[in-house]
Amino acid sequence: MENFEYCNPTRVIFGKGEIGKVGPETRKLAGRVLLVTGRGSVKRTGVFDRVAGSLEDAGVEFVELDGVRSNPLLSKTREGVALVRERGLEAVVALGGGSVMDTGKAVAAGVLLEEGDLWDLFTGRQGIHGALPVVAVPTLAASGSEMNGYMVITNEETGHKLATGSPFLHPRCSILDPSTTYSVPGDYTAYGGVDALCHLLEPYFNGPAPFTPVQDRMAEGLVEAILEATPRAVEEPGEYRWRAAMMWAASLALCGLTKAGVGEHRFPVHLVEHSVSALFDVPHGAGLAALLPGWMAWYARAKPGKLAQLGRRIWRVEERDDRAAAMECILRLQGWFSALGCPTCLKDLGISARDHGRLAENASFQARVWGIDDEYDVERIEEILGWCQDAQKG
Amino acid sequence: MENFEYCNPTRVIFGKGEIGKVGPETRKLAGRVLLVTGRGSVKRTGVFDRVAGSLEDAGVEFVELDGVRSNPLLSKTREGVALVRERGLEAVVALGGGSVMDTGKAVAAGVLLEEGDLWDLFTGRQGIHGALPVVAVPTLAASGSEMNGYMVITNEETGHKLATGSPFLHPRCSILDPSTTYSVPGDYTAYGGVDALCHLLEPYFNGPAPFTPVQDRMAEGLVEAILEATPRAVEEPGEYRWRAAMMWAASLALCGLTKAGVGEHRFPVHLVEHSVSALFDVPHGAGLAALLPGWMAWYARAKPGKLAQLGRRIWRVEERDDRAAAMECILRLQGWFSALGCPTCLKDLGISARDHGRLAENASFQARVWGIDDEYDVERIEEILGWCQDAQKG
Repeated sequence: MENFEYCNPTRVIFGKGEIGKVGPETRKLAGRVLLVTGRGSVKRTGVFDRVAGSLEDAGVEFVELDGVRSNPLLSKTREGVALVRERGLEAVVALGGGSVMDTGKAVAAGVLLEEGDLWDLFTGRQGIHGALPVVAVPTLAASGSEMNGYMVITNEETGHKLATGSPFLHPRCSILDPSTTYSVPGDYTAYGGVDALCHLLEPYFNGPAPFTPVQDRMAEGLVEAILEATPRAVEEPGEYRWRAAMMWAASLALCGLTKAGVGEHRFPVHLVEHSVSALFDVPHGAGLAALLPGWMAWYARAKPGKLAQLGRRIWRVEERDDRAAAMECILRLQGWFSALGCPTCLKDLGISARDHGRLAENASFQARVWGIDDEYDVERIEEILGWCQDAQKG
Repeated sequence: MENFEYCNPTRVIFGKGEIGKVGPETRKLAGRVLLVTGRGSVKRTGVFDRVAGSLEDAGVEFVELDGVRSNPLLSKTREGVALVRERGLEAVVALGGGSVMDTGKAVAAGVLLEEGDLWDLFTGRQGIHGALPVVAVPTLAASGSEMNGYMVITNEETGHKLATGSPFLHPRCSILDPSTTYSVPGDYTAYGGVDALCHLLEPYFNGPAPFTPVQDRMAEGLVEAILEATPRAVEEPGEYRWRAAMMWAASLALCGLTKAGVGEHRFPVHLVEHSVSALFDVPHGAGLAALLPGWMAWYARAKPGKLAQLGRRIWRVEERDDRAAAMECILRLQGWFSALGCPTCLKDLGISARDHGRLAENASFQARVWGIDDEYDVERIEEILGWCQDAQKG
């Protein structure tokens, strides 16, 4: 285990009906807020009216920033910053999925910039030194943005989708009401499960610390919970228990606990996926499902041990040889993706080998920003993409 | 899963050598502090000198409150409150095991009492409405007090050992340096593992929510980590990896995460153990080891399902009948205790059936304070003690 610091100050209010607490909780932080939403689903389901009513009842004025799309755009965050400044708003309430929460965070940080451009926060040209308070109300179990300090935004001018983070971006309060996710369709429910799995598995595989039993066991436990709950939530979308399990497991998957102590880990699958969704506009979780089996197969050639451990502990794989056990683990996970109707390779997304060059070029930009281009340069990323083009075979 | 709120604001700094950060971290909170320690082990090992030097280097003045004993006494906390008031101290640094940390917390809360007695905070006559900032520096992997808002104090006048808690009692910062635990002897290392296991298993068994897959999986993962690390730490006391695993797992075991969502759970084994250690002055972990197998056997008669789940997932117990699987689970855990030289029943502590009456009478006081005397009245506690008198047999 490597040395680490861990602090997660977000206050989580979890449960059926808790969405009615948005107003009173927000009122503790601000009287005038920006209310960020997506492209209308919360209005169709009635969730928006409940949140708006709760804010009004608590005496919180709000100004809407709606229309945030999946793979959220930098231009929308700029629009939000302008609204906050014009109207003198004091906090951000983000009601929606990861894209909405990340847009809310970007606005909250961007408002405090005195000079330069909001995109600087993503390219590393400027650090994040503060943010308005954020209240997150997720309506999708996936990103974990409700319990961490990360955000991902796409710059439609440059075609880059970049992730960054800061302790200032932790929501002050997050209200997780699993019943708000009943209306999430099956494919997006599955993509959410894939995203959460990937948040657990990337640090599990990519931490340099050779011995992290506590982190491994926690990650494996959450993986098991997600593997169990996701298909059940797809089958029974209105069954609270599965939605609740998915929502809590997804929040914990990227709350920092399973990463703390694994050392300076990397998120290579997220790195490459952000380019896939930036250039092909596919849902993030679909992109991850298309990349993870191939990345695992590439990785297993040199380091099969951790994959074998995962396979043995989760799927009770019995192969004694690490490489065979690792391959069996990959096939089991790929099978789980397939059964949920997720893609399992780039071909399934309509991407061909001809696209690998520009994907790799695009992804190498994030790798440079993250300072991991020593390991993930253009050639290496193209090599990995090659492994991801077609489904894995036993 | 039941509705819940979760927030753990403690900032954890974890790792070898991190103890040198005590001074700078404390200086952020206060310039004059009470430094609470135990009965000399930190002075013999040199840990005290490192902490004192770090505080001095950071310009933090400290006044010592030493001599805190295991099963810490109310009189010592009163002594601490008087010192803080006389000397105008602003925060508490607690350097030691759970007893030292809990004494530090009691002083921190007690100082702010304007009237009434410190013991009122434990009997529920007064609520906890604030506390001085606490910095915790654990030197034992056991209580988890470094990452929660609980404290347990023994009133030597009444013979009661009571636990209470408040969000105000979360340490602001906890510095976990596993190398400070190298000198912990084998028996106390084992008792620490037992304490952490019990913190995981009590909410696992006693939450009313019928379906808590995320909490179960996390608890099981931490149980596995402790089952693996504890015997290794006993065998190789100076091996960092095992000490680190134990320390982090013990902190997480009672940080609130595995309890959140299980509903209004109870800690019956801790309830009874506090009376065992109050009246017989045995180490807390030894008392827990003597009670847990018997309590589990008592509990399994009515509710074998969860014990069977634990046995199947952790020890891969194959019995298909829940009662048989539950019994096998109990025997496996009891065997783990035995192998570590821990007691496994009250007889092992020199307690006889003649003592059950006054133990039950004593424990019923805490049950009334906690409001769980509907389930744990004197008769019920005596019944459970009967199950704990001798070791479980297959």
